[in-house]
Amino acid sequence: MRKVAGSIERWDVFELSLKGPSEGNPFVDVMLEVEFRYQHRTVTVKGFYDGEGIYKIRFMPDVEGEWTYVIRSNSEQLDGEMGRFTCIPASPENKGPVRIQDATTFVYEDGSPYTPIGTTCYVWAHQKEQIQKETLRTLKNSPFNKIRMCVFPKRYSFNENEPEYFPFQGNREKGFDLTRFNPAYFNHLEERILELQLLGIEADLILFHPYDKGHWGFDQMDPETDAFYLKYIIARLSAYRNVWWSLANEFDFMKAKTMNHWDQLFRIVVDNDPYHHLRSIHNGTRMYDYTQLTLYDHHKPWVTHVSLQHWDLAQMHHWIKLYNKPVIIDECGYEGNLPDRWGNLTPEDMVERFWAGFMRGGYVGHGETYLNPNDIIWWSKGGKLVGESLERITFLQNILEDIPAKAGLIEAFYDVPTIGIKGEYYLQYFGTHRPAYRKISLPEDGNFNIDIIDTWNMTISNLEGSYSGITRIDLPGKPYTAIRVQQAI
Amino acid sequence: MRKVAGSIERWDVFELSLKGPSEGNPFVDVMLEVEFRYQHRTVTVKGFYDGEGIYKIRFMPDVEGEWTYVIRSNSEQLDGEMGRFTCIPASPENKGPVRIQDATTFVYEDGSPYTPIGTTCYVWAHQKEQIQKETLRTLKNSPFNKIRMCVFPKRYSFNENEPEYFPFQGNREKGFDLTRFNPAYFNHLEERILELQLLGIEADLILFHPYDKGHWGFDQMDPETDAFYLKYIIARLSAYRNVWWSLANEFDFMKAKTMNHWDQLFRIVVDNDPYHHLRSIHNGTRMYDYTQLTLYDHHKPWVTHVSLQHWDLAQMHHWIKLYNKPVIIDECGYEGNLPDRWGNLTPEDMVERFWAGFMRGGYVGHGETYLNPNDIIWWSKGGKLVGESLERITFLQNILEDIPAKAGLIEAFYDVPTIGIKGEYYLQYFGTHRPAYRKISLPEDGNFNIDIIDTWNMTISNLEGSYSGITRIDLPGKPYTAIRVQQAI
Repeated sequence: MRKVAGSIERWDVFELSLKGPSEGNPFVDVMLEVEFRYQHRTVTVKGFYDGEGIYKIRFMPDVEGEWTYVIRSNSEQLDGEMGRFTCIPASPENKGPVRIQDATTFVYEDGSPYTPIGTTCYVWAHQKEQIQKETLRTLKNSPFNKIRMCVFPKRYSFNENEPEYFPFQGNREKGFDLTRFNPAYFNHLEERILELQLLGIEADLILFHPYDKGHWGFDQMDPETDAFYLKYIIARLSAYRNVWWSLANEFDFMKAKTMNHWDQLFRIVVDNDPYHHLRSIHNGTRMYDYTQLTLYDHHKPWVTHVSLQHWDLAQMHHWIKLYNKPVIIDECGYEGNLPDRWGNLTPEDMVERFWAGFMRGGYVGHGETYLNPNDIIWWSKGGKLVGESLERITFLQNILEDIPAKAGLIEAFYDVPTIGIKGEYYLQYFGTHRPAYRKISLPEDGNFNIDIIDTWNMTISNLEGSYSGITRIDLPGKPYTAIRVQQAI
Repeated sequence: MRKVAGSIERWDVFELSLKGPSEGNPFVDVMLEVEFRYQHRTVTVKGFYDGEGIYKIRFMPDVEGEWTYVIRSNSEQLDGEMGRFTCIPASPENKGPVRIQDATTFVYEDGSPYTPIGTTCYVWAHQKEQIQKETLRTLKNSPFNKIRMCVFPKRYSFNENEPEYFPFQGNREKGFDLTRFNPAYFNHLEERILELQLLGIEADLILFHPYDKGHWGFDQMDPETDAFYLKYIIARLSAYRNVWWSLANEFDFMKAKTMNHWDQLFRIVVDNDPYHHLRSIHNGTRMYDYTQLTLYDHHKPWVTHVSLQHWDLAQMHHWIKLYNKPVIIDECGYEGNLPDRWGNLTPEDMVERFWAGFMRGGYVGHGETYLNPNDIIWWSKGGKLVGESLERITFLQNILEDIPAKAGLIEAFYDVPTIGIKGEYYLQYFGTHRPAYRKISLPEDGNFNIDIIDTWNMTISNLEGSYSGITRIDLPGKPYTAIRVQQAI
């Protein structure tokens, strides 16, 4: 029995690298599986071929202590090896994968709170090295702790450069061999995901997308190839704790796939990912449908949270009720000035949508789409952020962090979204509305402190005095105002 | 056979006034019906008691020529009288009642176009005489050709004055006799409706509303009294061509009534109104419901058009598709600064909502709710308009009037609402979005004229030159912009 050098942190990647056969097509021919055992528990994990005769197995242990393993393969060279390793406590910055806590909250597996503040850079990992580095620097100085990104390259307006790597061997001119992966592509992607992990950012990986239309053909592979690809990427990536699976972006634009196909693809993810990373699917223009027949049904049990494209954040609490799962509107439009509707929000509107969604118990995603002389536009390629919403989102994040843990949406305030604890704490947001004043009923024996928050100018003005009973709060009469009422200390 | 002096215009009111019994309770005891005949057609119309021994019959003839009538009554004094009159052509300003033309358009019965631009003054007819006069002056100088107004008085925030008249005899202190109407109340209301008619304004009469909560009790009458009241008001008012029936405002706030009640009340209107004036019903907070089970189902055949409260005008074309009837969002919020969500839109937002709805093939209603030292707030009591949206709505109305009759929503422009005729005319509105430019594909052999419209500043800037083929239109990069592209003359 082999003892692996060193020990592995809980939720880190335990990796075995093995020499094996390289003849034939190892991606197809070689079955490789490992049974990891901790006391009475067995977790079966699939290995993968990494090229040049090297096979790898990656495993994310979730319990501290002694683990053993045994390798099973149809290759004699690989079959039968056994070993053991020790899983040690996680270091402080390693909080484990993100899980669903309840209908409105996410949480790290170690119990630490996680509030997704996401952005979108679809194919940042497909750009030139220097731009990728710049993207990581930008992310480091941002409030974002989640990023939506694609596995496959993207061909779309403002995105016409060919990528350096492809997931399959071959090239566009001669054709791709859809039975052989390109390990260089995946090694590169894995480095990027680890770099995100170091920045505390979850990689919301988009497994399929329509922005190809036959240019490379990855949007139109047959169901067997889709399955083959999914199993491979899951074997490679599922041991990375900061991975989420987004089955597709704008799934409804992929005309070749039916709802049954999507169900089937979800099933493959469920069956092959031993860690149950978060799973969802994102819609395109089927964002509004009273019958819901054309939306992917997020009620399905394998969907862990709702990932929607929609512009109207005022509906957030209805969606949460409808699905009884956390709701992320990861696309509500992007700050910028592109000719297309989704890409020309004012920064005021981007910030308003964030507040409107978060203040109703949901989550909202960011993107930036300013015309750029070299077409380096954040939403697709990363690079720099030049917009005005960014710092306001950080301001919002700070306000959110100060909300007491027990607070939630108070539905009794039906006309203004209000997060709070009745009689103790209220954060109330007026959005584009601009009342001259607002009355609030506080406990008669209270001693409350009132802040007027200007969410655009990022100011918090404390009203003189302390308050109790029915209190009339005079407001500045302009949009983007919030009030915060809390017991004085 | 009696020949009535003079002759009656088509769609005007032919009125008979008769002496009859005044003992007992004539409102309940006396049945009075008149059969009006034109050639082979018979229209049966109910008369009503107008107090002091006077009975009246009102009739709106819809065909020019000789009409005869015969009176039927259980009172010997009234029964059996016959007569005739001549219906002459309508004068130019009399276009008849408004009808539904198709899923998106209204039309006067004479075929003239009618585009509802409505406002709301719930109880303007219940205010002091001087305020009512001021309201009429304000309306005269406004773009409005429809007004939402209540039959019953209203008790609500900023509305605590008692009205002069009540529809029933009695008063709040001693109680109302719900078996006896107050003719003075109805005479007054009728004068107001005629004054609106002279201004070319449709009276969208709200038959029931919840803003009473037992103060007078008109929101909680039993079904028999509801029916008794409906039949009376229909007998009095249905001959006025500018009347629409709105079964209720915020029907869902009237907890004592079920959906079956509302169906029943619609049925009474259908059965008693011989002219089939437009009919709808307006919701309160049940404005968003994926299942639609709590919305009144506007698909029902007796609902002529959809009257909704909703804030999100971007959904307009979906509602039109859903119901296949004209859709009026007669409450999307009001320009003002009240503490309540529905009453504190900026004027920019009010104007944006108008454009957003009209540009998607629907109709939007106005209201104004600025705090006023005497609580004379337009939305409820009328008076003066002080807001900034009014003149912009007139500007929009002028733009709408210039749209060619054949134009309609062009769905191919899925991301920006566009009214037009393919290859001939385009009016495209960007709303709160602010693209740096927009491309439009014009016929290669065209000779097009392009206007940039600033819907807020009310300017129309014509671009130099004429255009054809794929045309890039540089835009000012700010919200509330529209473009108009039309063939040069």
